[in-house]
This record gives sequence, structure tokens and C-alpha cells, in this order.
Amino acid sequence: MKNPHQYYINLAIGMAAENAANGNGGPFGALVVRNGEVIGRGVNRVTTINDPTAHAEVMAIRDACRRIGHFWLEGAVIYSSCEPCPMCLSAIYWARISSIYFAASNTDAAEAGFDDSFIYKEILLPIEQRSIPIARIRTESSGHPFRLWVNLEKKTEY
Amino acid sequence: MKNPHQYYINLAIGMAAENAANGNGGPFGALVVRNGEVIGRGVNRVTTINDPTAHAEVMAIRDACRRIGHFWLEGAVIYSSCEPCPMCLSAIYWARISSIYFAASNTDAAEAGFDDSFIYKEILLPIEQRSIPIARIRTESSGHPFRLWVNLEKKTEY
Repeated sequence: MKNPHQYYINLAIGMAAENAANGNGGPFGALVVRNGEVIGRGVNRVTTINDPTAHAEVMAIRDACRRIGHFWLEGAVIYSSCEPCPMCLSAIYWARISSIYFAASNTDAAEAGFDDSFIYKEILLPIEQRSIPIARIRTESSGHPFRLWVNLEKKTEY
Repeated sequence: MKNPHQYYINLAIGMAAENAANGNGGPFGALVVRNGEVIGRGVNRVTTINDPTAHAEVMAIRDACRRIGHFWLEGAVIYSSCEPCPMCLSAIYWARISSIYFAASNTDAAEAGFDDSFIYKEILLPIEQRSIPIARIRTESSGHPFRLWVNLEKKTEY
């Protein structure tokens, strides 16, 4: 393969177009590649499986983790047809993916009606200024699950 | 119910503790409530189903959407045993949940080894300064999926 980055990004774009054309969801596709092998594929399925978290990158990460039987993807590269939204970007961090390539920008997505800049802005705001009201409820037991976790002898950390 | 907020938040905390005690995952629990009815429940299952996106809030949102058969949760409230991480917060925005209550703070979580402040900081950085390398690949076909979407006659927008 002469230029693997170009090859995989075009594959992701092709998946995005096919997904939209087939009525399976939004025009987004993503691939997880490790050691020259595609280990995960995802397309946007939000409206067809009724899952608002079913963005292409999240679906590709879930697929890759299922395939390798682990919740970390160190050393893997994700190729996405579009710049990741903050949910997908955070999922990429939690999955410990090593690098990210994307084709279309968030601005391109916004022009087609997919605007995640609102969420990027909201995340930066102090919680009392956000548009979805968010409040802490103080309760005596709030620290209990963490204390229990810290004292657990057998646990899988992540 | 005298104080529903207190009731539901304690339920979420109980789910978090039970989840950790049973070895099912991290000490996190969340509930989606609408019109006085619990329509979604979630606990952290990252390490047991090998899904780095299986945080309590994401699981509760997916559960609620599956139950109601829609990808939006307008008018719903989410109760979480802990302040949502940026992935979960973004998922809450995508799901159009109307308000958020949490018990433990991100600082409490960090003390128990769950530190998402790193991801909050990363999201704010210009992409060339982030710790996971992220780059745009320019390619002629990058706008194709969006053009196709815009011209689609039958589509479910979200």
C-alpha cells in the first residue's frame, strides 16, 4: 500500500456515503486500524438503532474492542470521515487510541446540518452557565461507592 | 415521594456501590427518569463487556432510548452517582436530556483513581497541541457524504 493514510481515509468516506445512501443513518464512517489490519468499523446508526451515542467513531471503537476482547486500543489509529465530536473525541481518549486522522472538518459537518460546536462550547462553560441545567445533590452516601472501590481487593482498573 | 431528587440520586449511588461490589465494573450508576418513571438504568461496564464507552450515563441513555424506541429523551432527567465525564456530558446533550443531577464531584472521582480532568483539558486545546496526535487528511471526496445527505429526499434528521 503506497499511502495507507489516504487509503483508509477514503475507505471511511466511502462507508459514510454508503451509510447515508442506504438510509442507515447519518453520513459518517470510521475505521480502527492496528498493525496494518482493520480491527473495527463503524457507521452512524443513531436513528436506526435508537442510540444517540451510535456515532461512527463510537461504533468503530466498540467493534474493535469486541473483536480484540479488551477495552483499550493502544497503538491503534482511528480514521474518521469527519472531525470527531466531543463525545467521540472523549471516547477515543478513554479507549487510549494512539492517533486520529479525519477528512471533513466540523465546519463542513455544520454546513450539512450536523453542528457539534454547541456542545464544544457548553463543555467549556462553568456548570452554572450551561444550557442544560446541571446541579450537584449533596448526600452523605455519595463517597460510599468510591470508598468501596478503593478497598476492593480484586478489581480490574481502567 | 417527598423528595424525588434525593430518592433517585440515592438509587443511583446504590447501583454504583452494588456494581463495584459485584465486580461488574467501576463504581458508577445512573438513572433516566421521565414523568416520574425510571425509563433507563445504567452502571459502568467498561471492563466486563470490553467497551470503553460503557459508562453509567451512556448505558442509562442507551437503555432508555431502547425502551422508548427513540433517540431523543426530551423532558427526561438523568441522575448520576458522579459528575459526568466529557463523553457522558456530550452524550447527554446529543440525547436532548433536559436536566442533570449528580452526587459525587469529579474531584471525588479523581481521588479514587478516575480522573477525567485530563480529557476536559484536552478538548479545550487547539488540535495541534493535543496529546493524542490528530490531523486532517485533505482529500477530494471528503465532502461527498455530506452532499449526498443534503440531497437525500427521505432521511431521518437528528
